[in-house]
Amino acid sequence: MQNFVFKNPTEILFGRGMIAEISSRVPQGVPVLMTYGHGSIKQNGVYEQVRAALREHNVIEFAGIEPNPICETCLKAVTLVRQHGVQFLLAVGGGSVLDATKFIAAAARHEGSDPWEILRTVGSCVRSAVPLASILTLPATGSESNGNAVISRAATAEKLYFGSNHTFPQFAVLDPETTFSLPAKQVRNGIVDAFVHVLEQYLTYAADAPLQDRFAESILQTLVEVGPKTLANPRDYAPRASFMWSATLALNNLIGCGVPQDWTTHMIGHELTALYGPDHAETLAVVLFGVWQHQLRQKEAKLQQYGERVWGVKSPQAAIDSTEAFFHALGMPTRLSHYGIDANDAAQHVQERFASRRAVYGEHEDITPEAAAAILQLRA
Amino acid sequence: MQNFVFKNPTEILFGRGMIAEISSRVPQGVPVLMTYGHGSIKQNGVYEQVRAALREHNVIEFAGIEPNPICETCLKAVTLVRQHGVQFLLAVGGGSVLDATKFIAAAARHEGSDPWEILRTVGSCVRSAVPLASILTLPATGSESNGNAVISRAATAEKLYFGSNHTFPQFAVLDPETTFSLPAKQVRNGIVDAFVHVLEQYLTYAADAPLQDRFAESILQTLVEVGPKTLANPRDYAPRASFMWSATLALNNLIGCGVPQDWTTHMIGHELTALYGPDHAETLAVVLFGVWQHQLRQKEAKLQQYGERVWGVKSPQAAIDSTEAFFHALGMPTRLSHYGIDANDAAQHVQERFASRRAVYGEHEDITPEAAAAILQLRA
Repeated sequence: MQNFVFKNPTEILFGRGMIAEISSRVPQGVPVLMTYGHGSIKQNGVYEQVRAALREHNVIEFAGIEPNPICETCLKAVTLVRQHGVQFLLAVGGGSVLDATKFIAAAARHEGSDPWEILRTVGSCVRSAVPLASILTLPATGSESNGNAVISRAATAEKLYFGSNHTFPQFAVLDPETTFSLPAKQVRNGIVDAFVHVLEQYLTYAADAPLQDRFAESILQTLVEVGPKTLANPRDYAPRASFMWSATLALNNLIGCGVPQDWTTHMIGHELTALYGPDHAETLAVVLFGVWQHQLRQKEAKLQQYGERVWGVKSPQAAIDSTEAFFHALGMPTRLSHYGIDANDAAQHVQERFASRRAVYGEHEDITPEAAAAILQLRA
Repeated sequence: MQNFVFKNPTEILFGRGMIAEISSRVPQGVPVLMTYGHGSIKQNGVYEQVRAALREHNVIEFAGIEPNPICETCLKAVTLVRQHGVQFLLAVGGGSVLDATKFIAAAARHEGSDPWEILRTVGSCVRSAVPLASILTLPATGSESNGNAVISRAATAEKLYFGSNHTFPQFAVLDPETTFSLPAKQVRNGIVDAFVHVLEQYLTYAADAPLQDRFAESILQTLVEVGPKTLANPRDYAPRASFMWSATLALNNLIGCGVPQDWTTHMIGHELTALYGPDHAETLAVVLFGVWQHQLRQKEAKLQQYGERVWGVKSPQAAIDSTEAFFHALGMPTRLSHYGIDANDAAQHVQERFASRRAVYGEHEDITPEAAAAILQLRA
């Protein structure tokens, strides 16, 4: 096991009716900015529950945060925060609203001239952030219980991430009932996103960390069990609740403690979304199998263990095939061609971008720009 | 899944040499009280590492905390805290030193006349505590990452617990190398203690919580795998590290989120230690099998699942037998007679104590004082 530091101070409020609990947790008597997207929270009752819980509070609203939130939108909210002296941010929505709100929280306290530096800096340059919290309405990204955010910039078609101890939500409300009205496509995306989050922290090489392995396998097994059920019966509380809790634990930093991590699939996937527009989870489902095929020798032993424990199969190839069949059964395509993306074009662009950032990824740091191109060419 | 609130703000610093990291985390320029036991930390190098890390700090020492720490000893430390205006407590040792330090932290800020009220109050009367942290030298109790403590009172032979959000350690250092010199008996006790902590949160009834079940089973499987290895080879880093991390996750509140819990074994076990003196883990290994036999019908389905997944056996009785054989293989007795304790005497005393507290335990609240007596009579 490698040395590690683990800290996750976010308070989770899980279950039916828990939005009411925020009254005592959001500070009173100071301006609070409530951030959300394009208004689905006004159709599913979440907006009313939040406003009822905060009827004694001083709430300003900022709506219109888009999927794959862009810096340009966030900076409008930063202006609001500064104008009104906002002391607390409440993100109401999915991972995009949350990630945008983390960036707003950090950018409002950023001392440099250009907040985009927060994304550009290797390591973190965040020294402070406005306190924030979340009402989560889409189980997927795990952003409700970590300090990370992924932000895009329209002007340059970039999609980059930052992470900071200052941008953990103080609390996150997870009420599975608020997710019952989600479109099936978003649920499918969430299952795949959570599944790949686990794989990025698990499917590497053995590191004398049997408990971390088993925790990762536990989340994968649970997603395999409840994923199809919650897609088929979106208003069945039990599988939806287990899916929601699985997605949080997939990326709250716990299962990655003391073990090597990969993240190649995410890094290439971010470029595909920035360049061509597929949803985040859709890019992961395409790239993952290219990474596995390209790195088969390095990942062989762990694929064998994964296959035996999660799928009950006997070979690395059978583990790969089982995973792809699971994604297909969820209705998730796994090829670039499905999105009309030319593999050679994608390979060339991603290679150039990785090269310009001098980026090298993977648990062995052997995913060079050329390797990323080769991975994409495997996914035509 | 039941509704739940989960928050665990303790920062874990895990691995070789991590004691050095405390320099920047312990406040400088204010009196810090370092608490420890009977001096084993002066034989294993931990004392020197801590003092070296804090050579710029204002450190006062309080030594002599005993196993099953007693209120009377803790109150001496409370006097020191008040005399010197201590602003931070650093517990260096195992669960006893940690639990004592939590009580000292809460008692120093207690406003009533008698700090024992903290233990006597149903729920928690702790409104504030001196900030504290821990250097853990004995994997067992999980106290390094929760807000709970068990304290005894010599005058009345009582052993009671309290829990508060104010007494989570701010950080905990877990360096497996600091545990290499532990006596085998303490390692055996730690394995059993962690194992039973998991069982108290798992071996109840199904509650639509498949991920919590699998996390619990993951810790049990890991303890079954690494427990005998780390007993046989105490200086082998890898199994010791996995044992240490398993013991923390066994009782950091995570696996108990949203599921029914039992804790009967602990409640009866505390009385046995208070009345007759066996180590905490020794009492658990005796009582557990009485609880299972007495509650076989209520726990049958979960024992079946536990047997299949952790032991690969096909019946509840085989699961019970496998567990008892595991404890015996670790060198842990499972009968009262081993300690010269008369079962009828124990049954009578525990029944009286539970009755005087009007205590009812178990996931179905069906462990009456009479049931506790019957459980002990099964363990002659």
